[in-house]
Amino acid sequence: MGGFAKTPLLRRLGASLAPKLMLVLACLLFGTTAALAAEEIPFIFNTFSFLIWGVLVMWMCAGFTMLESGSVRTKNTSMICMKNIGLYSIAGLAFFFLGYNLMYVDVGSVIGSFKFLYGPSAAELALVAGQEEAKSAVLAGDYSTMSDWFFQMVFVATTASIVSGTLAERVRMWSFFAFTLVLAAFIYPVVGAWTWGGGWLAGLGFKDFAGSTIVHSTGGWAALAGALVVGPRLGKFRRDGKVKPTPPSNVLIVTLGVFILWFGWFGFNGGSQLALGSALDVVAMSHVLVNTNLAAAAGVLAALLLSRPILGRMDLFATLNGAIAGLVSITAAPDLVDHHWAVIIGAIGGLVCTAGIRLLERLKIDDVVGAVPAHLVAGIWGTLAVCIAAGGNFGVQLLGVVTVGAFVFGSSWLLWRVLSMTLGVRVSAQVERLGQDAGELGIEAYPEFVLMPEEEDEE
Amino acid sequence: MGGFAKTPLLRRLGASLAPKLMLVLACLLFGTTAALAAEEIPFIFNTFSFLIWGVLVMWMCAGFTMLESGSVRTKNTSMICMKNIGLYSIAGLAFFFLGYNLMYVDVGSVIGSFKFLYGPSAAELALVAGQEEAKSAVLAGDYSTMSDWFFQMVFVATTASIVSGTLAERVRMWSFFAFTLVLAAFIYPVVGAWTWGGGWLAGLGFKDFAGSTIVHSTGGWAALAGALVVGPRLGKFRRDGKVKPTPPSNVLIVTLGVFILWFGWFGFNGGSQLALGSALDVVAMSHVLVNTNLAAAAGVLAALLLSRPILGRMDLFATLNGAIAGLVSITAAPDLVDHHWAVIIGAIGGLVCTAGIRLLERLKIDDVVGAVPAHLVAGIWGTLAVCIAAGGNFGVQLLGVVTVGAFVFGSSWLLWRVLSMTLGVRVSAQVERLGQDAGELGIEAYPEFVLMPEEEDEE
Amino acid sequence: MGGFAKTPLLRRLGASLAPKLMLVLACLLFGTTAALAAEEIPFIFNTFSFLIWGVLVMWMCAGFTMLESGSVRTKNTSMICMKNIGLYSIAGLAFFFLGYNLMYVDVGSVIGSFKFLYGPSAAELALVAGQEEAKSAVLAGDYSTMSDWFFQMVFVATTASIVSGTLAERVRMWSFFAFTLVLAAFIYPVVGAWTWGGGWLAGLGFKDFAGSTIVHSTGGWAALAGALVVGPRLGKFRRDGKVKPTPPSNVLIVTLGVFILWFGWFGFNGGSQLALGSALDVVAMSHVLVNTNLAAAAGVLAALLLSRPILGRMDLFATLNGAIAGLVSITAAPDLVDHHWAVIIGAIGGLVCTAGIRLLERLKIDDVVGAVPAHLVAGIWGTLAVCIAAGGNFGVQLLGVVTVGAFVFGSSWLLWRVLSMTLGVRVSAQVERLGQDAGELGIEAYPEFVLMPEEEDEE
Repeated sequence: MGGFAKTPLLRRLGASLAPKLMLVLACLLFGTTAALAAEEIPFIFNTFSFLIWGVLVMWMCAGFTMLESGSVRTKNTSMICMKNIGLYSIAGLAFFFLGYNLMYVDVGSVIGSFKFLYGPSAAELALVAGQEEAKSAVLAGDYSTMSDWFFQMVFVATTASIVSGTLAERVRMWSFFAFTLVLAAFIYPVVGAWTWGGGWLAGLGFKDFAGSTIVHSTGGWAALAGALVVGPRLGKFRRDGKVKPTPPSNVLIVTLGVFILWFGWFGFNGGSQLALGSALDVVAMSHVLVNTNLAAAAGVLAALLLSRPILGRMDLFATLNGAIAGLVSITAAPDLVDHHWAVIIGAIGGLVCTAGIRLLERLKIDDVVGAVPAHLVAGIWGTLAVCIAAGGNFGVQLLGVVTVGAFVFGSSWLLWRVLSMTLGVRVSAQVERLGQDAGELGIEAYPEFVLMPEEEDEE
Repeated sequence: MGGFAKTPLLRRLGASLAPKLMLVLACLLFGTTAALAAEEIPFIFNTFSFLIWGVLVMWMCAGFTMLESGSVRTKNTSMICMKNIGLYSIAGLAFFFLGYNLMYVDVGSVIGSFKFLYGPSAAELALVAGQEEAKSAVLAGDYSTMSDWFFQMVFVATTASIVSGTLAERVRMWSFFAFTLVLAAFIYPVVGAWTWGGGWLAGLGFKDFAGSTIVHSTGGWAALAGALVVGPRLGKFRRDGKVKPTPPSNVLIVTLGVFILWFGWFGFNGGSQLALGSALDVVAMSHVLVNTNLAAAAGVLAALLLSRPILGRMDLFATLNGAIAGLVSITAAPDLVDHHWAVIIGAIGGLVCTAGIRLLERLKIDDVVGAVPAHLVAGIWGTLAVCIAAGGNFGVQLLGVVTVGAFVFGSSWLLWRVLSMTLGVRVSAQVERLGQDAGELGIEAYPEFVLMPEEEDEE
Repeated sequence: MGGFAKTPLLRRLGASLAPKLMLVLACLLFGTTAALAAEEIPFIFNTFSFLIWGVLVMWMCAGFTMLESGSVRTKNTSMICMKNIGLYSIAGLAFFFLGYNLMYVDVGSVIGSFKFLYGPSAAELALVAGQEEAKSAVLAGDYSTMSDWFFQMVFVATTASIVSGTLAERVRMWSFFAFTLVLAAFIYPVVGAWTWGGGWLAGLGFKDFAGSTIVHSTGGWAALAGALVVGPRLGKFRRDGKVKPTPPSNVLIVTLGVFILWFGWFGFNGGSQLALGSALDVVAMSHVLVNTNLAAAAGVLAALLLSRPILGRMDLFATLNGAIAGLVSITAAPDLVDHHWAVIIGAIGGLVCTAGIRLLERLKIDDVVGAVPAHLVAGIWGTLAVCIAAGGNFGVQLLGVVTVGAFVFGSSWLLWRVLSMTLGVRVSAQVERLGQDAGELGIEAYPEFVLMPEEEDEE
């Protein structure tokens, strides 16, 4: 600040500048055509970042849909489409009516407020309605709360998408939708309140940048609870100990789904910087995108190389899941770790996911798309890896993993049980054999294609 | 402005600051590395908004292609691909050679200028060519006219895509392309001149933010006219009053198409704010995106719940169309309505679309993908809903709906008739039975797959 | 500057303003909430441009995957998926470990530095790690080097994708991956060092805005060398001179792939402006996007109209390739040429591509997806067209085309030969007949669909 002393005039100027005056001067300086106040600039950047990256995250929902609908047998493909367009809609509305407030508004230690309807700031609505004087109140925040809602909303849907994949081919549609409603309106927001909402885990210093635990493990725990309550598909695990192979019915659609997810993940992680309005933010965002890509690439190669020793074959499906696992693994700290650590974290993610696929088969847990290995196992790994690679506190990270796991698994298990005793969670054996498309929806996914009759399931 | 009086020096400074001087001072303040003039900042934001959102709207063309090519029977799938890549190309060039000028340049009350070739401002070309002194003339506008052209161009293609879906499986390719040419070069630009171009409807206060009427109903009316002239597919409506079911041949591709459209719609509606260069703009854009998503989600759920009472079955195809209808409905005023109104408007959109599917069947109008219910019926609803939810003038909104409808339907009907008498609008019965892929293109969409022989059509 | 003299106070002020002081003043002016220094603004714009457009270019990888996996016979579809997810991962890591440094760091005339690991600037890492004082060093650059790495990395993958398409259905997976590794770590970076890295061709004034030669022809030459070494598919060219038709097995997926590429190309060309932080940059970017779209549209129509005279049929596949060829053609100078030139360049691109398809068949070179005509032939045309339309030096452009061609073709041919003698580049005749999916991967792409038995190949 030494340079200041040289110019007493300016110092006096600086000292006497009230904020209002600064604004006026700034406006003057911003010339004739543009009345852009200087503090609007970071506000625009931050808000636009939420919008554009949020749109990419919404697109991930299409990725999950493709991944899942290509993975299931053709007789259940339409139902996957129905569940995914439905879950995205339900999750979005549930987060509007309840979830957002529980997660972010007046969060104490455990949960936010039970206000009905998402309420954007009055100042923003006034500004949009033409009251220019509301601008200063709007600019008191760093970004539009509406853009924040949008960005947070698209995250909820991801959680529900994960559940859909695991339980494909046998869970009843309405029960799944009911579960989605509670997941998006309550379970996920509670986890979010503890962490991103500023609750007790955040207070302890728990680190989870874009949601290895908060989003992906949450989805994975909910899926695991569902898999246990709903049970495996008929004939999947045979009495003789053999596992019936159920290869994806449309491999290129699965691949397309993975590419969509990878693409959308740049929004998922990049947007989670939550700001774009400074050089620091945009440099951090660059760091995040580079790490995200490196981890995914490493996950692919690890799974490609390790699928033969672990699964007995060079496996495309495991390789594709390796990308997801690499992405999930880096999601806890893409902002903190060095690039070479991103490679290592992603590669180990690919490894634990591939091993997880094998483990689930051993445990006779039927996870149609491998969502539990890719999202839960890799999510746990990613959350703990923050300690190794970026100096997170191991105890706190572990505490986060365990408490989130206990809460989500417990509440999900309970909910699935309640649904089981009321709506019923499982389609009839007849519908399962016939396929949910014909049995529940009355539509075939590929009505003109001649398909193989499926071998009779042993029970 | 009271704070000003406290500092006479600054007041004098402010009073004497000529624009040129302000620029110089601004440059000084902007430091050594960056020579960014302050008024460039909103210019960059506005222009970039057109570009990035415009790119997303272009992507909607892929969405329509998937929606349509998955909806038709496999024997017509390739032709849908050909028509869609062709229509996007033709529409873009037609808008370059003629349409844009008719829509936006020197619009009187009814139509713009008949200049050949889109002409970007000379100042912009000079700046790009290296003439730094052109900058001030460029900055006299709020954004690059070239970016505006780009954004407007991608909208035209949407209109043509709607027509393609309705008339699938029987319209001749070259006639369809000829229609597209006139639609993009003349019909759509005239509607656009009346409204966004500043013509007579705009003068009356007609409100249509991103084109419920201007884009979607225009496409819908053109499609309806075509459906009447071209007639239904052979055997679609039987003598005994039954309607031959023609389910989508590839359901997951239809679903992918809907997700692409939903994704792209954020560009369609978000970009229609036409600016990003102020806090007001970006808050409004956030509002728009939130409403867009809420309406689509509500459209999905409404169609899901209402398809059984209305159509007799829980219908995936109607549910997917519910998303489109919700999106079309909110498109007239996503900037004006409160969030809860967006939910209601979208839900009613899903309802009227589902009812519209039923109505068209009753009227024996053959609309292969349900584009008329989703784009025209929901578009009318959305345009009128502006009155209920956002204080639009009902008479003016209705006048817009009716006059645009009369003009587009009338001119389209005439054009289809002329094409019918010259090129012919309908493939021969033989080609229709064989499929347009084999009959017109000499290519099969799925040559290695064994397909069902189709049941013989009754005529 | 005359206005200045009127205000001696300000002139004195201006003259005495040390950079530090300016920063302080700027901070003051930027109000209370935002501490955004003025020179951060173009930095943010430039960096964000790399990120968002780079993400779109990454998405092109999905486009190539769809284009290729839909083009091959169903028995090789899964392998295409595996190769593409693998190549994107390998290329990204290779560019991290070696390629980027060779291409951009300390480039003399021919090649950069052989440093291991991509190294972002220490200042950026320090800033991300929380050292606020690193900001000025970061801002000494125009953008984040990490964002630049990200943008350059996604380009590498494009080059490898091109090779994958040409050699589909018979190249061994591991050999292809080995080739990709060297292409991304060495061959492409050398070409890049000569040009974008500032080497000898750049010194001569060679113009190639986004890589007609540097990316697309490089991929095309590498593919051509591979096609010659690996040889055509069994039975493709018959003894009687007939060419066995091998139509795409999934036409709508091919179409989806082309739409993805067109969409992503806006990032490819738009992002290649390398800056967004001034009115000039964003106007130039607008110009680029308009030209890109015009050229692609013209390529489509040219191929549609010319496929009948050239290929004997109105060909969807040629039409789709026309889009790619139009895009490749304009890529050398979308910033320089007038809009009508973009139309002409794209149309000629569609023409030479269609003719190239015919020529390759005559030469009995087997290019499964037409990548050589679309990327190499159109890439050469586009690079030379810079002279006609934008005043490039013909000799220099030709020299670039020839030297890049000689280097890439030569080194690739050598590498394919070495691979041929070591790993082997071609699957066994048995695997080729059976398909790579079952033969190498042990997975079918469409296991539930009944497929046609293929006619016996004549050898």
